[in-house]
Amino acid sequence: MKLSCRTGALALGILSFSDFLTPALALPKTLWAQQRAKSHGKKVFASAINKRYTNDTTDDANDPEDCYVKTAADIAAPKDNIWAGLTDGEAASVTAWLFAQPELNLTTSGEAGEWDNTIILVELMAPNKTDALAYLDGTGSAPDRYAHAIIDHAAGEDAYYGDIIVGPLPVVNGTTTWQPLEYPYSRKTSGRVRNLDASSDSLYEKWIYVIGAEVADITMDLWGASCTGSDNDTLDIWGIDPTYQEGDSVKMWNTFWSNPTTIFDVGSMMPMGLFFLSDITGRDISKWKMEGWYYNGVFYETTEEFRAAYWNGEVEKLGGNFDGDWADTDQQGDVPPFDTLAPPVSMIPQGSRYSVDPGRKYVEWMDWSFYIGFDRDRGMTLWDIRYNGTRILYELGLQEALAHYAGSDPVQSHVAYLDTYYGFGPFAFELLKGYDCPSYSTFLNSSFYVDETTHTHINSICLFEFDADYPLARHSSSNYVTATKNVHFTVRSVSTVGNYDYMFSYTFFMDGSVAVEARASGYIQAAFYALNEEYGFKIHDHLSGSMHDHVLNFKADFDIMGTENTVEKVKQVPHTTTYPWSKGKVFNTMKLDRSFIETEDEGQLFWSFNNAEQIFVVNQEVKNSVGESKGYRILPYTGTAHLTVEGSTVLKNSAHWAEHDLMITKQRDTEPRSSHPYNNQDTENPPVNFATFFDGESLNQTDLVVWFNLGMHHVPNTGDLPTTVFTTAHSGIQFMPANYFDVGVNKRTVNMVRVNYDDGEATEVATFGSGGDTCELNYEPAAVDLWEYVGDVVVRKFPYLPDDPYYETDSIV
Amino acid sequence: MKLSCRTGALALGILSFSDFLTPALALPKTLWAQQRAKSHGKKVFASAINKRYTNDTTDDANDPEDCYVKTAADIAAPKDNIWAGLTDGEAASVTAWLFAQPELNLTTSGEAGEWDNTIILVELMAPNKTDALAYLDGTGSAPDRYAHAIIDHAAGEDAYYGDIIVGPLPVVNGTTTWQPLEYPYSRKTSGRVRNLDASSDSLYEKWIYVIGAEVADITMDLWGASCTGSDNDTLDIWGIDPTYQEGDSVKMWNTFWSNPTTIFDVGSMMPMGLFFLSDITGRDISKWKMEGWYYNGVFYETTEEFRAAYWNGEVEKLGGNFDGDWADTDQQGDVPPFDTLAPPVSMIPQGSRYSVDPGRKYVEWMDWSFYIGFDRDRGMTLWDIRYNGTRILYELGLQEALAHYAGSDPVQSHVAYLDTYYGFGPFAFELLKGYDCPSYSTFLNSSFYVDETTHTHINSICLFEFDADYPLARHSSSNYVTATKNVHFTVRSVSTVGNYDYMFSYTFFMDGSVAVEARASGYIQAAFYALNEEYGFKIHDHLSGSMHDHVLNFKADFDIMGTENTVEKVKQVPHTTTYPWSKGKVFNTMKLDRSFIETEDEGQLFWSFNNAEQIFVVNQEVKNSVGESKGYRILPYTGTAHLTVEGSTVLKNSAHWAEHDLMITKQRDTEPRSSHPYNNQDTENPPVNFATFFDGESLNQTDLVVWFNLGMHHVPNTGDLPTTVFTTAHSGIQFMPANYFDVGVNKRTVNMVRVNYDDGEATEVATFGSGGDTCELNYEPAAVDLWEYVGDVVVRKFPYLPDDPYYETDSIV
Repeated sequence: MKLSCRTGALALGILSFSDFLTPALALPKTLWAQQRAKSHGKKVFASAINKRYTNDTTDDANDPEDCYVKTAADIAAPKDNIWAGLTDGEAASVTAWLFAQPELNLTTSGEAGEWDNTIILVELMAPNKTDALAYLDGTGSAPDRYAHAIIDHAAGEDAYYGDIIVGPLPVVNGTTTWQPLEYPYSRKTSGRVRNLDASSDSLYEKWIYVIGAEVADITMDLWGASCTGSDNDTLDIWGIDPTYQEGDSVKMWNTFWSNPTTIFDVGSMMPMGLFFLSDITGRDISKWKMEGWYYNGVFYETTEEFRAAYWNGEVEKLGGNFDGDWADTDQQGDVPPFDTLAPPVSMIPQGSRYSVDPGRKYVEWMDWSFYIGFDRDRGMTLWDIRYNGTRILYELGLQEALAHYAGSDPVQSHVAYLDTYYGFGPFAFELLKGYDCPSYSTFLNSSFYVDETTHTHINSICLFEFDADYPLARHSSSNYVTATKNVHFTVRSVSTVGNYDYMFSYTFFMDGSVAVEARASGYIQAAFYALNEEYGFKIHDHLSGSMHDHVLNFKADFDIMGTENTVEKVKQVPHTTTYPWSKGKVFNTMKLDRSFIETEDEGQLFWSFNNAEQIFVVNQEVKNSVGESKGYRILPYTGTAHLTVEGSTVLKNSAHWAEHDLMITKQRDTEPRSSHPYNNQDTENPPVNFATFFDGESLNQTDLVVWFNLGMHHVPNTGDLPTTVFTTAHSGIQFMPANYFDVGVNKRTVNMVRVNYDDGEATEVATFGSGGDTCELNYEPAAVDLWEYVGDVVVRKFPYLPDDPYYETDSIV
Repeated sequence: MKLSCRTGALALGILSFSDFLTPALALPKTLWAQQRAKSHGKKVFASAINKRYTNDTTDDANDPEDCYVKTAADIAAPKDNIWAGLTDGEAASVTAWLFAQPELNLTTSGEAGEWDNTIILVELMAPNKTDALAYLDGTGSAPDRYAHAIIDHAAGEDAYYGDIIVGPLPVVNGTTTWQPLEYPYSRKTSGRVRNLDASSDSLYEKWIYVIGAEVADITMDLWGASCTGSDNDTLDIWGIDPTYQEGDSVKMWNTFWSNPTTIFDVGSMMPMGLFFLSDITGRDISKWKMEGWYYNGVFYETTEEFRAAYWNGEVEKLGGNFDGDWADTDQQGDVPPFDTLAPPVSMIPQGSRYSVDPGRKYVEWMDWSFYIGFDRDRGMTLWDIRYNGTRILYELGLQEALAHYAGSDPVQSHVAYLDTYYGFGPFAFELLKGYDCPSYSTFLNSSFYVDETTHTHINSICLFEFDADYPLARHSSSNYVTATKNVHFTVRSVSTVGNYDYMFSYTFFMDGSVAVEARASGYIQAAFYALNEEYGFKIHDHLSGSMHDHVLNFKADFDIMGTENTVEKVKQVPHTTTYPWSKGKVFNTMKLDRSFIETEDEGQLFWSFNNAEQIFVVNQEVKNSVGESKGYRILPYTGTAHLTVEGSTVLKNSAHWAEHDLMITKQRDTEPRSSHPYNNQDTENPPVNFATFFDGESLNQTDLVVWFNLGMHHVPNTGDLPTTVFTTAHSGIQFMPANYFDVGVNKRTVNMVRVNYDDGEATEVATFGSGGDTCELNYEPAAVDLWEYVGDVVVRKFPYLPDDPYYETDSIV
């Protein structure tokens, strides 16, 4: 999540199999993909599944062949996954086609300098909902496929990014065209956004390292360390994000950080407290200006002024932050009692109880089904989520994540990371089996495009079933007791955007509810402690746990019994009244105020004081058997947050979605996303300004979208050392059926029990066929060999070298 | 949770072993208790434990004898459990002694009529904190033991309950005395509270059934059902709680409910919509008055008026609610795919990794330790919670639970259950192994006194370790990945107070955090649907899901590095300012406002808008290594609630603790509890009026108590049929160390891994000795035989028949 000098060497592997990518469509599988797919559904036959579905275990379902379902059952998705991404061949052909378009004037990234045009992105252009529904609901053919590409137009003085689409696919020379992509963005500039990073190489080579060398005398004296651009630098220099933009001027505050001396990724906790300001407007470096230095509360207009003060002894030497055992994550300290014994572990005695189409990334668990999509900006998205065949959500996924810092120093006060600039896709690394997800999980791959290659994160999405440590429902009386297991299903990915690890979990429950959770771990970005008392706790010798707000925006496109929906608010309010039976006596009691959100003017909501207001997405035209509108309630699950800062000087118009908790808009194909990865390139006039979504449209029985924020106000303390912990750094939301079914659908599971008892003896133990399956139980755990952890696989697209993959994993730091 | 006619027959068992009670102190164990204790720590030797503690697994810890730790290791508590309750012998001797005191004029409950004095309660009087700390911290002897008894003085016109203490124990005739218990209550009336239920038998026999019979012609015509007090009644009649009190007058609204026709406990969902009002002031039934009828919005002054209107056809017949498949909890409907296969299950491959002193109810898990207490009113309480030997909390437990309903009808509008009146102890029933808690849990018993007997709930408290489905911390980079397992430890009990099942879970984490969670399941108390549109959803043919607030008050007596503590508030606020480096430019940013709660005048808090305010209990005098005060943060974990109703006409002064989210008071031996079980007997002037706790005392570096509320605003919908689900009906709070340790203590666990990788291969897999224990792994699950479910064991105390236990389980309905 921080800008720094990158030093990624391409490590060429020696593998020769042909394809690491999970195909998006049901195309012929490469050898490699075939091998992956084979590991799913081993020895499972459709007939056995169907038998289990009908709870018929009396006949040849007993065949031991049918019983071994250790991995997820194979299933064919009912439709193609129209969000799964480009096929390997499509990406290669689009890339080649783009290089063939002379007007784009493209150079390959390996050969390009700062003044060359390059391809930043080639991925699937997600279909419009209008087209997608026509296909999914059987009345239309699959939407035409287009590639979404971004061209870095760096060849001119006014560098800009260009969003374009290429298609329709497959590429046919002479037919295929490209056009500017503008309709999904609120800013109508033909998909063009200025590129403030076009001179980033020069910024380091010709500016930052020069300045670092210029003050090396001081940094050596202060800390015995320096940053000059040399391989053995002991300091790093990086600073604010976004760059500070005002009118046409672009300014950059940078600061010094000590370099880690071990493998541990602790750089963001090593600030040194010395800052400098540069005016880096435009691409003519000769016009850039050094605008001053800041240290311990004092601003110096020039380097000379700072140097004079320093060597005159006017600058107090405050020390610096350096790594050490305190900052690394390896085990340290007294081992707690019994800790070396194996801890509890979850297992699946009769194997996985769900079905996956790994090619189409389609999943069925119990009565739930959905497709998984993945893109560069946002990582994983769930699509077409259905219960018992009926759609509940068309789309559910992350949009953007903001980490807005504050501090008395000029770096922390200017930092407001908008993480899709880096992207959640590129950093959704391989998961640790048995740690990030149970060892028996099904793991899927995910891919993203960079530098004419497609990187594939192996095993980066996990699917697993789990029995909670509490039941779903229960009741005791003096003569019977009953309880239902709370078995649920989770889809998870983790994106490590620089210092921070975001874990995203989507969980489905037997009662029809869904939970969306985000957890944060990894290293904090800390501040130098000087004068930051009002902005954080002191957490180490010279370190402030710099306060910041995490706000993560999600899109939940509900379709409750069709697309025509309304948001209903049901508020419990104090109420003073008389009743026909109260003989005039005034009662202090409470009642419900029910109202509908009529238009987008009322569409931006805060969670209510005392959680008094309940929010429902209902279909007023579709009633349950007793006449209430079918709906889903949206309720806060664990701590949520919107942005504390009001009118942020740093963000300007780039993150208006962070200002409320829940936001409702009319679904428009022209408003598919709340943010754009280049919103930080023009904060005043970003490509997607979420505020423009609210233009008074009716929300009464229309297709609507709920945008909600998860997050936390983070004031790190020593408990965040070395890394923040998921136990308390979490935020979640739940969707629960409300008057949607006539009774709780959890009644359908057989994983419940009723015990009748009397006079000290159980008189009946009713198990409803649970455990009735005759397949053998196997409590041996899924073996995990962590030596199989490999990192990302890369396949070059231009030239297209599908048989020459290699391994390389890039993180931000 | 509802008042009804009870019909509990004593079922005498034939068992002859001598004692079902877990002894409170280290007294010689009875044969039965010895057998129970033996099942703990089988084949575990102290030496083996010590070896594991020091992480030394190299020598004879390898002896297979040492390895089999399937059950919790036996341990001797460092001190007696001074909160565990009376011993069996103590309870018997106090009971006998009380019967020998002529001034109490006691009759045994079996022989007592409505006009006799009886013993309601005999249990341990919890020691004052002052005395307890002196003992625990080694400077004093164990506090003198006293019994707390409640006498039902029903022999006179002005019936009252008398709280008394008896002691010191053991009972010595001539030395032992009783005295009124007044000091822990805010109301100073010698521990006496009027008894409004003294004539409850007559209320049914001579009033309610008479009225039911009087209108049987109408109820038969309306619903084909009647309530006359006969064994084959098809209707039940019950009503409001508390009785409606105004000055000296006491009134009761009752309504009709259809009786369940099966074993299912669905009575609270079968309201019939016909109500009548009685003035039941005083014990002279001849002065009681029928004051009117209410049906479908119309109030009738007299029975005659109602009858005339009914038979004149002026009353619309609205139908009634009757049980059926829709209301029972047995499996119904299509079985979801794969559901008959065994679901995931957690196991303990090397057995339990914690130690229990089952006699003293003392527990050690990893670096945590605590004692478990249990009493009639509140059920389970945790005491002397320590991390690594240092106390964090002196006391943590439930105080009271309110369920405040509202409705247009006179019953729901008057109902505000204060559940300690019924008690959480008597209804903390046996847990369902493998459903309520993992099958491998350690189960403890709990006991309460009633009618000269001690009832023991077998296996009613569970202790278990669990690995969450997400890690505690993680971090990925381009060359390594690390994660730590999130293994935690939970103590749980469930109390079914009438229709509702409350699950209480206290969970301890490796990072030093603690979670307190309450979940609600069981049957709702529903309302007849007529004219209740503003008070709930319609959820069945004639049924309203009657809105209500659950507010559950807990006491958390923090002692952070001693008893002298202060509450600090740290609030993130928007901030507009200039900085030395900003050249006059005004910045919109944020900062922290830090402040201390100085006195009880500031001690009643709401959770803040946007969760902007963080609450810490700190010790300002004890700093961590970088100078911040050591502390614990209190943070909302899952939805919380305080009472919506303002100035409740029903509650009056009986539940002022429900009006805020967090309340801080100075710890006083005279203010040990926020409520009293008889607060509902005098709502205007209850025995404990929590508002009186706030009298301006300093909270600056003093011994303080945090009272917090969990709860939910419950507007039941069809998803609450047949029972409410724990997935969404939950509320929780967390305590997390904040600047308490110098770095996260989760670094101490070996259950973490670091994998280094490069060029497609793992180059190091560091496991820190986890899995290094040489004991054999055993993945066979703990066998659960639900036919062993037995219910409560009863031992008679007067006469004392320790060798003649029998089984009987009493629920409210």
